[in-house]
Amino acid sequence: MKSVKNDQTAVFALGGMGEIGKNMYGVQFQDEIILIDAGIKFPEEELLGIDYVIPDFTYVVKNKDKVKGLFITHGHEDHIGGIPYLLREVNIPIYAGKLAIGLIKNKLDEHGLLRKAKLNVISEDDVIKFRKTSVTFYKTTHSIPDSYGVVVKTPPGNIVHTGDFKFDFTPVGDPANLTKMAEIGKEGVLCLLSDSTNAEVPGFTMSEKQVGDNILDIFHKVDGRIIFATFASNIHRLQQVVEAAVSTDRKIAVFGRSMESSIAIGQELGYIRAPKNTFIEPQQINRLPADKIVILCTGSQGEPMAALSRIANGTHRQIQIIPGDTVVFSSSPIPGNTISVSRTIDMLYRAGAEVIHGSLNDIHTSGHGCQQEQKLMLRLMNPKYFLPIHGEFRMLKEHVKLATACGVPEDHSFILDIGEVLALGKDTAEVGGKIPSGSVYVDGNGIGDIGNIVLRDRRILSEEGLVIVVVSINMKEFKIAAGPDLISRGFVYMRESGDLINDAQALIAKHLEKVMERRTSQWSEIKNEITDTLSPFLYEKTKRRPMILPIIMEV
Amino acid sequence: MKSVKNDQTAVFALGGMGEIGKNMYGVQFQDEIILIDAGIKFPEEELLGIDYVIPDFTYVVKNKDKVKGLFITHGHEDHIGGIPYLLREVNIPIYAGKLAIGLIKNKLDEHGLLRKAKLNVISEDDVIKFRKTSVTFYKTTHSIPDSYGVVVKTPPGNIVHTGDFKFDFTPVGDPANLTKMAEIGKEGVLCLLSDSTNAEVPGFTMSEKQVGDNILDIFHKVDGRIIFATFASNIHRLQQVVEAAVSTDRKIAVFGRSMESSIAIGQELGYIRAPKNTFIEPQQINRLPADKIVILCTGSQGEPMAALSRIANGTHRQIQIIPGDTVVFSSSPIPGNTISVSRTIDMLYRAGAEVIHGSLNDIHTSGHGCQQEQKLMLRLMNPKYFLPIHGEFRMLKEHVKLATACGVPEDHSFILDIGEVLALGKDTAEVGGKIPSGSVYVDGNGIGDIGNIVLRDRRILSEEGLVIVVVSINMKEFKIAAGPDLISRGFVYMRESGDLINDAQALIAKHLEKVMERRTSQWSEIKNEITDTLSPFLYEKTKRRPMILPIIMEV
Repeated sequence: MKSVKNDQTAVFALGGMGEIGKNMYGVQFQDEIILIDAGIKFPEEELLGIDYVIPDFTYVVKNKDKVKGLFITHGHEDHIGGIPYLLREVNIPIYAGKLAIGLIKNKLDEHGLLRKAKLNVISEDDVIKFRKTSVTFYKTTHSIPDSYGVVVKTPPGNIVHTGDFKFDFTPVGDPANLTKMAEIGKEGVLCLLSDSTNAEVPGFTMSEKQVGDNILDIFHKVDGRIIFATFASNIHRLQQVVEAAVSTDRKIAVFGRSMESSIAIGQELGYIRAPKNTFIEPQQINRLPADKIVILCTGSQGEPMAALSRIANGTHRQIQIIPGDTVVFSSSPIPGNTISVSRTIDMLYRAGAEVIHGSLNDIHTSGHGCQQEQKLMLRLMNPKYFLPIHGEFRMLKEHVKLATACGVPEDHSFILDIGEVLALGKDTAEVGGKIPSGSVYVDGNGIGDIGNIVLRDRRILSEEGLVIVVVSINMKEFKIAAGPDLISRGFVYMRESGDLINDAQALIAKHLEKVMERRTSQWSEIKNEITDTLSPFLYEKTKRRPMILPIIMEV
Repeated sequence: MKSVKNDQTAVFALGGMGEIGKNMYGVQFQDEIILIDAGIKFPEEELLGIDYVIPDFTYVVKNKDKVKGLFITHGHEDHIGGIPYLLREVNIPIYAGKLAIGLIKNKLDEHGLLRKAKLNVISEDDVIKFRKTSVTFYKTTHSIPDSYGVVVKTPPGNIVHTGDFKFDFTPVGDPANLTKMAEIGKEGVLCLLSDSTNAEVPGFTMSEKQVGDNILDIFHKVDGRIIFATFASNIHRLQQVVEAAVSTDRKIAVFGRSMESSIAIGQELGYIRAPKNTFIEPQQINRLPADKIVILCTGSQGEPMAALSRIANGTHRQIQIIPGDTVVFSSSPIPGNTISVSRTIDMLYRAGAEVIHGSLNDIHTSGHGCQQEQKLMLRLMNPKYFLPIHGEFRMLKEHVKLATACGVPEDHSFILDIGEVLALGKDTAEVGGKIPSGSVYVDGNGIGDIGNIVLRDRRILSEEGLVIVVVSINMKEFKIAAGPDLISRGFVYMRESGDLINDAQALIAKHLEKVMERRTSQWSEIKNEITDTLSPFLYEKTKRRPMILPIIMEV
């Protein structure tokens, strides 16, 4: 932060800039740091075996005494999933809406961190005051209830972070507080950080109410059972399923751990309102006629272990597809899941179900505003400086074009990398300095213990397999005592490759004898000889380059 | 074929049914087999390290004396890619249009199979007669020139295979021969096998001419260099790039091996017509002003080794992105490539290029007809029986709905699996019997040597890594002579995991000593002890389950 002057406010991202996921942002004035969100990112395909990716918390840990609090915009994993990992290192106070607090509590409980955590429920009217800065909120609409934008008031000016948002004028829950946004804009916004997810998509997102009408239409038309899959966290959607079920006289059975817990927390907090006996126990399904049943389940992304995938492939303990079943995907596949979703749909068709999916049926809408909504936010906030967030580079770039069209001078918009710092004065903004940032991989219990070397090894092993060469050498007489023996995994089916293995062993033996004649005691020399002999031989025979691991035993 | 009577014609698929790719179909009357296409499929994500998937050729090899010929509908990889693997086993005559023959020649040459191959160029007017059956063709439109439908005349009736098709009334090359199709329909079609790829998409595909107009618009508007990426095999598209370049006074430099070879073969066969000096050598780029240049390249699917990816990430030897460059993706990402395409676009933006991509710009159109076109084909052919091909199960199912709507009775449509046989009499059709069929994996030089065990090992290795335990045992004294030592790959970064390794070694040593006390000489007992000790220990410490490979040396 050396490049930031004493009268300037620093704004930076530790994640969620130039990428989708692991959102985490910071606003710092002198010795007061306000953090916004701490999310995870689901790993891309080449991060073999990695469970999650989280932000590098180094800067936060180093400056923990300055951190006033972590403010959460809403309860999605890419905004709250990193909290347990963060809290293991620094126990900072957390401020969030009531639903997000509920979800965070579950999460911290699983990690054994709940007891010590300092959790604060905020509402729209709260002002959280610190010595030099203060934080307020405004209600937004998004695909989870209780979503907020955050305003950080700092001496040079107000910094507004939109969180994830869309403008749904006919939402299922509370509407966005346009009035408060207009007031915030009128008071003056030094810098706006705004959600860029749909910056490439023209127009306006469909309202959740319209989705509800279309769901109701389907419930009216279908005669058999309805198997309804959607995102468990989309509690408004769940409420609409409840309403459609009630009005068509169907009962709902819930399957999938995250769906069960969403229904529970949604009812507890009042977001899901259902007449008594709307929900039934799984075993009651068989006592009701098919046209009285809704099976509400997880797995709309084709996740292999989720309820819907197990129903589709016939391995679910309680539900089998029967003729007349209709499966509804109230979701759209996120880019990495296109193939697994298609496969699930295909299995359901093969099992005999009808499937309703795809955007053609208008039974899903994005939680992120499209270009018209992003422009509306820009016009309401009317910021002096603009920082697009939540998006890959090209989305940030498109968002800057929208800002320019809405009157923010082009040189007042900045596309940052994670770790880059924007220093904001009353009338100045400049990019300068960098703080530690990056991706930390979580694999099982390990946080950050998987690096590029391990991933590189996993990649080679996954594509080409492994050949181990074991040889015992008598180092006194410089003779091969036993072996060389070849063991392989993931390379070829050994039982059917006898000739290849025998030839390879003979070749290595011949070369090793020559090395022995040189009376070397350098193990690295022996190992290199094995690798240098075997690798081209195997490539010539198989056109594969397995990892070769020589193991030498001295006797 | 036991279930097929002597006066019936058998129709079956060896690939391309219930899946997209490795298309291969057979029509058999008594001792005459007509094969149609022999394609490859690109492996899905979980087929780690596999290069291609090809059909199981067992039935063809067993009945090679009956096979009259392999008839190729067009030159795409999913229709011709399997030919070298097939010809290694049975050298059957091949019949195809001139472009497909050109592409097959290249392919066979690479595999050293060209000299012996029996290749025959066909045209639309040819009739290939055998003793009991004969084969004729009709021109279709698709995303590669020289595409044909195939008619197999057999005593019970005519079998029509559409190949891949769309109805483009204003194509770049020859139009589809609607007249001939109508005549074939009038003569009578016993069974229609029709392309189902776009059976879920309503409407009519955009014409290639419209794509050409939109490309020309872009060429007019752009001031800097144009970097144009598309499928190398879409030779009509390449011709349209040539025309746009000529009319805006630009020269074209070609990058990427498959693009170079397409341009060469396209010019040789007359599909690509360009005034002299339209194409320039790569090194000439630097001598021309930016607005006189088109860089035509491979990589529109984000393939990591293709020209465009290397341009995007700055590792291309000759092309760097400069300000003012516009990259055009004249393509749409196939489902498995969505993420790699996004990533390439992002890198290009970061490098400073403008990027034009996506269906919004109408610079790409599918080669496969949508529902209206599939219905037109059904109405023209007016088949007695219908067999949807080229598609996943749900697409086949949608296609049956279209056939039903177009007057084919529902029980005259059949959805087969690969290997299932449809036996057709003059007025009868029944599914009966199964011939060998399946997926054969090609990995490097190996064909079919990678099976489920190797793939399972690759999956475990890729996600959890490997731990090798090496121990030398003195089997006379029942004592550990050396070790146990732990070696790992893809598990944890060993240098930073000293405690974990030491504890594991100590634990194994303790357990092995107990085993030694039992004076066992069963190696399997020793190995199991190592695995059973180490696996839960590592899981407890790391929540990972690496593959454990005990290696015991006797001294």
